[in-house]
Amino acid sequence: MKNIMLTISYDGTNYSGWQRQDNALSIQEVIEEACQALFQVETPLLGAGRTDAKVHALGQVATIQVDTNIPIWRLPYALNTYLPPDIVIVKAEEKPLEFHPRYDAKNKTYRYQIENSPFPTPQLRNYTKFVYQPLDIEKMKEAGQYFCGTHDFKGFCSARTATATTVRTIYDLQITKCHDLITIEITGNGFLYHMVRIIAGALINVGRGKIPPKEIPDIILSKDRVRAGKTAAPQGLTLMKIEY
Amino acid sequence: MKNIMLTISYDGTNYSGWQRQDNALSIQEVIEEACQALFQVETPLLGAGRTDAKVHALGQVATIQVDTNIPIWRLPYALNTYLPPDIVIVKAEEKPLEFHPRYDAKNKTYRYQIENSPFPTPQLRNYTKFVYQPLDIEKMKEAGQYFCGTHDFKGFCSARTATATTVRTIYDLQITKCHDLITIEITGNGFLYHMVRIIAGALINVGRGKIPPKEIPDIILSKDRVRAGKTAAPQGLTLMKIEY
Repeated sequence: MKNIMLTISYDGTNYSGWQRQDNALSIQEVIEEACQALFQVETPLLGAGRTDAKVHALGQVATIQVDTNIPIWRLPYALNTYLPPDIVIVKAEEKPLEFHPRYDAKNKTYRYQIENSPFPTPQLRNYTKFVYQPLDIEKMKEAGQYFCGTHDFKGFCSARTATATTVRTIYDLQITKCHDLITIEITGNGFLYHMVRIIAGALINVGRGKIPPKEIPDIILSKDRVRAGKTAAPQGLTLMKIEY
Repeated sequence: MKNIMLTISYDGTNYSGWQRQDNALSIQEVIEEACQALFQVETPLLGAGRTDAKVHALGQVATIQVDTNIPIWRLPYALNTYLPPDIVIVKAEEKPLEFHPRYDAKNKTYRYQIENSPFPTPQLRNYTKFVYQPLDIEKMKEAGQYFCGTHDFKGFCSARTATATTVRTIYDLQITKCHDLITIEITGNGFLYHMVRIIAGALINVGRGKIPPKEIPDIILSKDRVRAGKTAAPQGLTLMKIEY
């Protein structure tokens, strides 16, 4: 039996999210079916973390436990022949049997993309949140720095969050602008449910002038979900990378 | 009666192309229906040129002749409320009644995008041609320069081309690479049917080492469609800009 780590890219537009569920097509289900077709045996997928409906990934990670003679380098090609074009296995590596994709993750990087222009670009509609009011990028950059470090992010997670602690560490948060595209890239030791999208929403409110950058530390300390503002739309979010 | 020039962006993925046709949904038909819904009268659209199925636009141009009191700056917003999210009117301008979007066009710019990497990125599948063999970008740049100038492009158009002359002038052809994305941007006084996609296909063959760059002038002179190689896939192509 081998413990194989898969690195996976997907376009989440047409899926109900990562996790298998009744009555809706999930990315996990589609990959598990591809594995079953290839290995001719049920192959449950253990994911590093969930992504919501319409959220994308360029570096999602999951493991499978399987007994196979297919050379490891060939596995992505073999699995991709059973996958639709919006899900692609980009890497396969053998790991020790005790390796766990969620518990062993050291940090994760997410990207949130905003199109800031008078009219939305149709080709970006599934990959960005569209904002027509001009956003003040300098204020957003200033505000972004206040999220870095170790904080209790209780005010920056969905009420549905069930976790022992809401303390997380953000190692880096970079905001860049290229033409009409604003990109927030954020790396941390872990993220609460909806945390990146709520931070993105708060940063958009900063850019619009609704929240002064200097108020961010106070909003974090308040642990008040309402003060952070709306959760930004799912299609702007991409899980970029998980490091072990 | 006003002659109004619309600048249009669209994601061509789900359409049979620009031109109205039976049994398949075209971009022209969808915009004409939006115009009819807004103006309450049949409003034929006169396009600057056709695009094929799955081909995109960021700067397609078309005119409508209509009697309306809606201020010109409001027209894009008004029309967009009747359009699906994959078609967006980005500008409206009033033109003299004799202005013709096709005959008055001075030059057009197209972009062809190639993803050159070991595995395709799902989010790019509808907007790039995927090539896994490493492409030699320097050879492609060298070859690209031979297309510039005035040439008879008879060997670089579909057999279905019906036109008085196959002579066209290419003013500029730039090839750039950013990470795994290779972009060919080409400006000319006009393009024959499939011409940009056949040039892109030839440049891909150059990048693969199948055609030496120095052979391009000879292939152009030969007027032999077969020597240019395969027409590159439609989804890599975007009509960027039309200048008047």
